[in-house]
Amino acid sequence: MDKLWNVELKEYNSNQNRKYETIFTLANGYRGIRGAIEFSKVGERGNFIAGVFDKNTAQVTEIVNCQDPLVFNIYVDNELVDIDKANVLDFNRTLDMKNGILYSNYKLELKSGRIVEIKTERFVSRKNVHRWAAKYTIIPVNFKAKMFIENIIDGTVVNSAQDPAWLTKHFEVVDALDLKPGIALKTRTYDNKIEIVEATKVLSKDEHGNVFKIRKYAKLGERVRELYEFFVEEGKEYVVYKYGVTYTSRDTKEELFAVAHKELVDFVNEGYEKEKEEHSIVWTKLWDGMDIKIKGDDTAQVGIRFNMFQLASSAYADDPRVSVAAKALHGEGYKGHVFWDTEIFMLPFFVYTNPEVAKSLLMYRYNTLDGARRNAQLNGFKGAQFPWESADDGMEVTPKWGVDYDGNPVRIWTGDEEYHINSDIAFGIWEYFRATKDEEFLINYGTEILLDTAKFWNSRLEYNEKEDRYEINRVIGPDEFHEHVNNNVYTNYLAKWNMKKALEVKEWLKEKDFTKYETLCNQLGISDVDFKEWEDKLNKIYIPMAKDGKLIEQFEGYFDLVDIQITEYDENGMPVWPDLKGYKLHETQLIKQPDVVMLMLVLGEEFDLESKKINYEYYEKRTMHKSSLSPSMYSIMGLTVGDTQNSYKYFLKTILTDLEDNQGNAGHGLHAASTGGSWQSAVFGFGGFSVDENEVPNFNPWIPDVWEEFTYTINWRGSKVVVTVDKNDVNITSEKDIDVKVYGKDYRVEANKKLVVSR
Amino acid sequence: MDKLWNVELKEYNSNQNRKYETIFTLANGYRGIRGAIEFSKVGERGNFIAGVFDKNTAQVTEIVNCQDPLVFNIYVDNELVDIDKANVLDFNRTLDMKNGILYSNYKLELKSGRIVEIKTERFVSRKNVHRWAAKYTIIPVNFKAKMFIENIIDGTVVNSAQDPAWLTKHFEVVDALDLKPGIALKTRTYDNKIEIVEATKVLSKDEHGNVFKIRKYAKLGERVRELYEFFVEEGKEYVVYKYGVTYTSRDTKEELFAVAHKELVDFVNEGYEKEKEEHSIVWTKLWDGMDIKIKGDDTAQVGIRFNMFQLASSAYADDPRVSVAAKALHGEGYKGHVFWDTEIFMLPFFVYTNPEVAKSLLMYRYNTLDGARRNAQLNGFKGAQFPWESADDGMEVTPKWGVDYDGNPVRIWTGDEEYHINSDIAFGIWEYFRATKDEEFLINYGTEILLDTAKFWNSRLEYNEKEDRYEINRVIGPDEFHEHVNNNVYTNYLAKWNMKKALEVKEWLKEKDFTKYETLCNQLGISDVDFKEWEDKLNKIYIPMAKDGKLIEQFEGYFDLVDIQITEYDENGMPVWPDLKGYKLHETQLIKQPDVVMLMLVLGEEFDLESKKINYEYYEKRTMHKSSLSPSMYSIMGLTVGDTQNSYKYFLKTILTDLEDNQGNAGHGLHAASTGGSWQSAVFGFGGFSVDENEVPNFNPWIPDVWEEFTYTINWRGSKVVVTVDKNDVNITSEKDIDVKVYGKDYRVEANKKLVVSR
Repeated sequence: MDKLWNVELKEYNSNQNRKYETIFTLANGYRGIRGAIEFSKVGERGNFIAGVFDKNTAQVTEIVNCQDPLVFNIYVDNELVDIDKANVLDFNRTLDMKNGILYSNYKLELKSGRIVEIKTERFVSRKNVHRWAAKYTIIPVNFKAKMFIENIIDGTVVNSAQDPAWLTKHFEVVDALDLKPGIALKTRTYDNKIEIVEATKVLSKDEHGNVFKIRKYAKLGERVRELYEFFVEEGKEYVVYKYGVTYTSRDTKEELFAVAHKELVDFVNEGYEKEKEEHSIVWTKLWDGMDIKIKGDDTAQVGIRFNMFQLASSAYADDPRVSVAAKALHGEGYKGHVFWDTEIFMLPFFVYTNPEVAKSLLMYRYNTLDGARRNAQLNGFKGAQFPWESADDGMEVTPKWGVDYDGNPVRIWTGDEEYHINSDIAFGIWEYFRATKDEEFLINYGTEILLDTAKFWNSRLEYNEKEDRYEINRVIGPDEFHEHVNNNVYTNYLAKWNMKKALEVKEWLKEKDFTKYETLCNQLGISDVDFKEWEDKLNKIYIPMAKDGKLIEQFEGYFDLVDIQITEYDENGMPVWPDLKGYKLHETQLIKQPDVVMLMLVLGEEFDLESKKINYEYYEKRTMHKSSLSPSMYSIMGLTVGDTQNSYKYFLKTILTDLEDNQGNAGHGLHAASTGGSWQSAVFGFGGFSVDENEVPNFNPWIPDVWEEFTYTINWRGSKVVVTVDKNDVNITSEKDIDVKVYGKDYRVEANKKLVVSR
Repeated sequence: MDKLWNVELKEYNSNQNRKYETIFTLANGYRGIRGAIEFSKVGERGNFIAGVFDKNTAQVTEIVNCQDPLVFNIYVDNELVDIDKANVLDFNRTLDMKNGILYSNYKLELKSGRIVEIKTERFVSRKNVHRWAAKYTIIPVNFKAKMFIENIIDGTVVNSAQDPAWLTKHFEVVDALDLKPGIALKTRTYDNKIEIVEATKVLSKDEHGNVFKIRKYAKLGERVRELYEFFVEEGKEYVVYKYGVTYTSRDTKEELFAVAHKELVDFVNEGYEKEKEEHSIVWTKLWDGMDIKIKGDDTAQVGIRFNMFQLASSAYADDPRVSVAAKALHGEGYKGHVFWDTEIFMLPFFVYTNPEVAKSLLMYRYNTLDGARRNAQLNGFKGAQFPWESADDGMEVTPKWGVDYDGNPVRIWTGDEEYHINSDIAFGIWEYFRATKDEEFLINYGTEILLDTAKFWNSRLEYNEKEDRYEINRVIGPDEFHEHVNNNVYTNYLAKWNMKKALEVKEWLKEKDFTKYETLCNQLGISDVDFKEWEDKLNKIYIPMAKDGKLIEQFEGYFDLVDIQITEYDENGMPVWPDLKGYKLHETQLIKQPDVVMLMLVLGEEFDLESKKINYEYYEKRTMHKSSLSPSMYSIMGLTVGDTQNSYKYFLKTILTDLEDNQGNAGHGLHAASTGGSWQSAVFGFGGFSVDENEVPNFNPWIPDVWEEFTYTINWRGSKVVVTVDKNDVNITSEKDIDVKVYGKDYRVEANKKLVVSR
């Protein structure tokens, strides 16, 4: 195996189990299975199926940790193989990202002195998202004995198992089924009565065929179990395959046991190796459209691939009712909720590598528009107000209250005030359309979102009569250190952009498909009267600027705050908290993450280089990077304005967010926004890819000295474009003819001919 | 606390948890709760209710490990207090046997660095067998924090949790109830639909009264849970009481939730301290009737008290449908089955210290007579054939098959061939009557058992025409190394005794209560014709003897076996396996435990001292003591025949069976027969108490040099008799006038006057 394609763990430490359960999660967009070790009880297993949400007694609606089909116990006589009670003689876990397979090797000396070696493979199929499988090769190194394999589907799972106050059970066990052989367990969520079936089957094999001798089946309360007994000889290899199938009532109207059973039978008939091969082929295709190669920097190479691997694993094109959560399908963190992380941080990756998936993610917003409309109504606004945290129906699910370390309740305001999510989604639609020219999408879905978010903004604007301007007051911008602020630039600027873009696009639609345009106006209750009003108001939206006209004030009054700057950095180059001199954090200019700079990245073509530079320099000194969304953005902007050294540091920080757990909470799930940020940092930052105001792709790459060669692939309007940057040149190939700018100069890349531009 | 009343554990080692769960089990005859540490997940918890049996998919009917009401989790913020993940700064567990209370002290440094001290008390009430309680004093040593107390009743419990092949769930969870506050969980066994309710409530207390702030209730699958949140200050003591109540449908016909709830409310109203005090008073009374004092030998003192404490804990007088299992209420070992252990090893303790309980144990056999009759019928015999292993209905429940270490099936023959259980029970009845003269029992219950077992034996005898004698062939005697033997002396001799005693007793009944006699003959289908036949046959029952007429041959042909003797002993004075020289064990004269010697102990008055000596010397050299039932018996016989040194060794071995785990399986439950053997070894052995053929109590005590004074108490025909042996004298007091023999001479002990006899 090629180490540049692998994430490898060579030493066992049970304290790290939760972290590596996230890193070794296998997902396929339909579902995610955390990378638990079958032979350890330490950690937090997770089996998440996209779209399966429930509230019950939880604080808010959350992704359900479903019944666990992974349980696979090995007993030697009556001695359970448990890594935490054994002497670990050999240990290795390797995630093969090229093929999407998790390999593990364990050589364990049990308390009895018996040494058992177990080699495992596991994959969650990308060929058929309802399938997953594992293969176990078991070698009794120094003994012969009776052995038991215990295949269990465990329905005792709860959410927040580690949090006594919020521990919640989200489903009841409906029934168990003996598939003779094989087992299945049906559960049902409390609120929406979603039924979930997990079915598994284990088969054994040696040179004589089947190895198992005796089978026992039992339903043990909320668990269903089949047990196989057999005899093993010293030094021989025993292979056990485990086939898994998953269906929910979201997938089909048919009876789930029957559906899962049929699928399981088909799977077994087709065989483990065939599915594994087809699964690998899907990955090969995925990598072909997205791989980034960094020669000369193995850490960066493995790191960027890890981020792409996990992000690509977290979404698929076939379910337009789900999106990628902040922790993806990798953990219970943030309760499976979808934030602006998706449209602003992750979506570009899909837009430029797998537009079908990007479309599906945007369709999730379209399909939750009714919830967004109810939010607006409940809050006294018009149109559609997308929730800051979104679950299954588009209703706001941000918790209202948290607690601080003394147990005092703390009001969480993001769900009330972080309005910019609406224009973030509108921007996502535009970005997708700009890159794909998918008119069908814009006609049928995108315009409706643009118009209804514009309608929301129009109702949200507050008129300041004295100044004759429109304001948006009492908001939170991307920088969450400052709450209840007035006229946050990011918010106001993008609200204005959203309204303007809505007006542009409705003009486009009017020409393109007048019937659809009329229907839409009818449906949304808008007419030229409204468009006129929007036009008038958007031009009067207040954008606070500094006196010199270049430095932007993050929000009204920000420059009047106490100006405490960052002066020290830790061993990783990350800011150390400066002395607050008795001030509260929100009384200072310290910010959590980019806000003005964020705006300049999202709408890069609207700001000149000097503005970017001035603002980068000002805010970089005041940004604490207390969000995993932060470093990647500074990396990109740093490269834009020429701060290359910091950019490389921020890039590494970003790509290693989970691998090195540098936020300290990788165990809760993937930092999905950071995976998207990693890709943006590579492609928009080092790759220098941007789209200018004329919708021409620009390439202004810069690579660090240590990189011998840097290659990335994007999809521009249906054409695969490969850009390779080495010490001397920028090489661009494209499947179709395209016009580009390289370092500011116009070129034409002819189909399948390499364009070489000197650096 | 007095260390001579305490079993103390001072160091924590999770490997010993299972063993100490047995040692620290608290029971009251109605139920037993294994001495699990609330703050450890390592071990095998057990909650056994006498008489609650189930088979479901198990090999045979077994005692049900019921839902666990003991779960009591403490969280500091979200950090679970778990001893196995903490640094153990201080640890002590003490069983106060005087009062029947288990104390524990833990001082734990959690991973977070927080140090928490927890002092616990726990008791299972002897005042009201449906009640149990615990008290927790929690001290946050070096922190203030939010704390959670999680009170759970766990219905996920299975039997044979450590044994994958036989792991069995014996109940389903029927319902949970929120007692607001308090929780209850109702389960129902699969076969007999016995309902079981556990209900618990936790209350907190500091100087201001209640401490808890927020309560949450949830049913989590098979578990029911209430969670309390509160805030703790550094160094303060927080007290939490936990009240528990248990009812089953065996106890009442009323709805169990209502019954348990009422009981719980009453219990809380009366209060923890009151119940604890009344519970202690019951123990004081029990000890008054049974205590044994050994001055000068602390190990022996604590040891003998431990055996009496646990044996006395294992039975009560109020349920004549249950008896004491081989592992008592202390573990799943031997599946809660009742063996001859009860009548031959444990019953004497109860007969002479608590005859009401002895009667109740015998009533269990009376109440299972119908099962015994069905056994006889199924095996082609007449009368009542008691099962070798007995559960709830008197049907044979000995497993037919076991497996050896290579996983090969091994046929277990004891259930087919170990017939002597029938005369063991008959003897138990006689021993009880001899000591109590409880005529009501003998008239209404005892005679029926004696007659129906005699009838069984009569049908079991085989006529050997050639020798004109009756034989009992293909049997297993107490020594289970030899199966399928013919004419085992123990079996034949006691069968004969059983038939003879039945004939004697029916004569007695005929005179005492002719109507009952006639009714019984009618009911059992017997008449003078049968009695004549029994009389004729019993005199022809073959008892194999050696040539010299003194040494008894264990069974026909035993002396022809290869005579391999024991020559080496291990560091504990226990036999080392001699070289079998290629012979199979059953081809040698090596025996597992006393067989001939056992007979001479049971029917001591029928054998002269010379016979006892000759047989003791012969068999002692050939006994491997591969049963915990063995050493105590050799201890008694050794004292009878003057082998005092070995006797003391065997006595220590017996009393420390569980405390030192010298059979290596204390974790599976109490060695209950050994606890009875311990008492017999003390009272019948060192105390030299026996009853002669004229039913006169004899006292022939001998004590080791290290014992300064030795006192024991027995109940002889309703009179409490206290015997104190010191270096010079034997002192006897009695509540009533009694005639005794001391060292072979006749004395009269006048009521409440001390008889002093020089040694």
